[in-house]
Amino acid sequence: MTASIAKTFYPPHRVLMGPGPSDVPSRVLDAISRPTLGHLDPVFADMMEELKGLLRYAFNTRNAVTFPVSGPGSVGMETCFVNLINPGEKVIVCRNGVFGGRMIENVERCGGIAVVVEDAWGKAVDPNKLADALKAHPDTRIVAFVQAETSTGALSDAKTLCEIARRHGCLTIVDAVTSLGGSPLMVDEWGIDAIYSGSQKCLSCPPGLSPVSFSDAAVAKIKARPKKAQSWFMDLNLVLGYWGGGGGAPRTYHHTAPTNSLYGLHESLVILQEEGLEKAWARHTRNHLAFRAGLENLGLNFLVDEAHRLPQLNSVFIPQGVDEKALRKTLLDEHRLEIGAGLGDFAGKVWRFGLMGHSSRIENVVYCLNALEAVFTAGGMKLERGAAVAAAHQIYAAQAQTEIAS
Amino acid sequence: MTASIAKTFYPPHRVLMGPGPSDVPSRVLDAISRPTLGHLDPVFADMMEELKGLLRYAFNTRNAVTFPVSGPGSVGMETCFVNLINPGEKVIVCRNGVFGGRMIENVERCGGIAVVVEDAWGKAVDPNKLADALKAHPDTRIVAFVQAETSTGALSDAKTLCEIARRHGCLTIVDAVTSLGGSPLMVDEWGIDAIYSGSQKCLSCPPGLSPVSFSDAAVAKIKARPKKAQSWFMDLNLVLGYWGGGGGAPRTYHHTAPTNSLYGLHESLVILQEEGLEKAWARHTRNHLAFRAGLENLGLNFLVDEAHRLPQLNSVFIPQGVDEKALRKTLLDEHRLEIGAGLGDFAGKVWRFGLMGHSSRIENVVYCLNALEAVFTAGGMKLERGAAVAAAHQIYAAQAQTEIAS
Repeated sequence: MTASIAKTFYPPHRVLMGPGPSDVPSRVLDAISRPTLGHLDPVFADMMEELKGLLRYAFNTRNAVTFPVSGPGSVGMETCFVNLINPGEKVIVCRNGVFGGRMIENVERCGGIAVVVEDAWGKAVDPNKLADALKAHPDTRIVAFVQAETSTGALSDAKTLCEIARRHGCLTIVDAVTSLGGSPLMVDEWGIDAIYSGSQKCLSCPPGLSPVSFSDAAVAKIKARPKKAQSWFMDLNLVLGYWGGGGGAPRTYHHTAPTNSLYGLHESLVILQEEGLEKAWARHTRNHLAFRAGLENLGLNFLVDEAHRLPQLNSVFIPQGVDEKALRKTLLDEHRLEIGAGLGDFAGKVWRFGLMGHSSRIENVVYCLNALEAVFTAGGMKLERGAAVAAAHQIYAAQAQTEIAS
Repeated sequence: MTASIAKTFYPPHRVLMGPGPSDVPSRVLDAISRPTLGHLDPVFADMMEELKGLLRYAFNTRNAVTFPVSGPGSVGMETCFVNLINPGEKVIVCRNGVFGGRMIENVERCGGIAVVVEDAWGKAVDPNKLADALKAHPDTRIVAFVQAETSTGALSDAKTLCEIARRHGCLTIVDAVTSLGGSPLMVDEWGIDAIYSGSQKCLSCPPGLSPVSFSDAAVAKIKARPKKAQSWFMDLNLVLGYWGGGGGAPRTYHHTAPTNSLYGLHESLVILQEEGLEKAWARHTRNHLAFRAGLENLGLNFLVDEAHRLPQLNSVFIPQGVDEKALRKTLLDEHRLEIGAGLGDFAGKVWRFGLMGHSSRIENVVYCLNALEAVFTAGGMKLERGAAVAAAHQIYAAQAQTEIAS
């Protein structure tokens, strides 16, 4: 049983431009290393309340039930499904990538009946298909879709999809893992009933927490469940005793909250509030446009149409003849730069470049374009030296002009 | 939606002597603040492998399937039940406190049939009652019990209970949340099939991770499940694709691992390995004996019989006439000392003093006894000044003599 003698682990520095985790600012790393408090300490409880308020700001909601689930985004997803689906209920899932597929798994494991609306990977969810499916299945109770598909970089029109669902009397479950903090997201205005996200994308925390928010209608359905949720850990009727549903009742022990991780999420949201949500969205777009100019200069083509492209997740086709695994290894080993591989049908066909949260910076755009030029050139491609970065700089310069003019 | 402007959260320092989290050493806090790596980075994967080895050391097992679940102890618990119980199966749960009760909840939500063996809170599980229940229910498939009841501080005889279960052809699920690293625990020697723990007790990490280990027999049962586990997130048949079951297959993405929290767990296990497991157990006993002498000198009586008392969790009856809530508030506000309240039937009747992991130190023993003397004296109790600490020091001195003599 004796392990070979292990030593302290010192991770190398990386530039994180994959699909998450993103670069974590030192303020957040400092926050998570502060002294651990008891999970029932009144000082910690005050921090929890502030954290809920900050998440309401990020989600654009007044929902009382807004808090971070003590687990990664997949636990946030499962928390939504496990609480909102009663066995035998019909749920329409719009699938246009990996995470829609995971939603189907969740529906089925909760004893729900999944009706799948399919769109091609890399396309946005088609609202007309959803409307047709709702007409064909008038007994549908819930509509679930991914606003920002991390597997492809496609952005779907959450506002329209929620409108259609509401018109048919359905509640909505929305995956905002990659959108929260990076793209417009208006939980109340759009009428989203249950939403989950992750800490490690545009919020730039380490992974491990999943912010969620539930509308009053969703909470009412959960409170009226005829049968307990199948998960004890995720049962909101229990979890809310600890996080509080807004009623001011005293906190009761449910599970031990991940104190230090929560310090980090708090700090990342303080940073977001300092910048301002709209400015953070604009920054993600600005860096995306510059990066895009550089990628196109390198001859790379985007997977997703311009109209549905997520600024924070850039999927491009891999040029023919490139050994993509070897190239990613070189980027990681020699440039300390992580980029994302393709998933599912797009494995080996696309790369995914994240410009999320703290990774959405001019430094990263320039660094990555330079690194790509270097590895492509080393691989025999004929490229004009410095042209990709120059293309990006042109966009930045034009943006600066526009800002001065406006 | 605008939150009032929030600022960086600076938690105060506390001395953590409740039922967990325990004091986190600065080496662990430093570790979790190191640069975030991608969860598929090969350097991170090497750390994961080392972490599995370190957990095998702590659990005293050669089980291939030994890893930390990405969630608090309650997720570790649910992972065991969700994977091992097939709907309709009979499970004997021995309940002698809060966490046995939670096991029953888990069994029922998984569609199992719970047969409950009851022992009074504060008592160890009675092996004879388990043997009788197994005779009365020969179709039982699983026996579940808590080795170290955090709600009372009672230690049950895991070795004997597992022997009885095995004799009746049952698999065992054991809660070792409070025992791992603090009390003898021999997963292989005792034939435990599934075990879960927490990071924030005797391992002295921040809360949020749950080490688990599964025997080959447990893994075989999980792989042969006729029906998928009801939880997608906790489904070991999927999770193991990422953490690896020991077969050397390439890692596949399941969920995004909580990278920085895992750095912390790794470091806490490196510290445990440096000290040596047996020496850590002995340290927990040594500090408990000194603390006990001090508590008894203050006139406090233990809830649990000496034979079944956990050294890392000391439950004592609250003296009559003491406003226990006010006293805990004074300890927290004026002495920065957290101690634990009673749970369930013992709410308002006992306090729980944790001496877990890094909190099991002479400094904490002395500091806590002094603080108790101060608040008791302020409350009007007549105590000989310094006597409690002196009683503890006498024990330490006697222990030192014994060590020199041996």
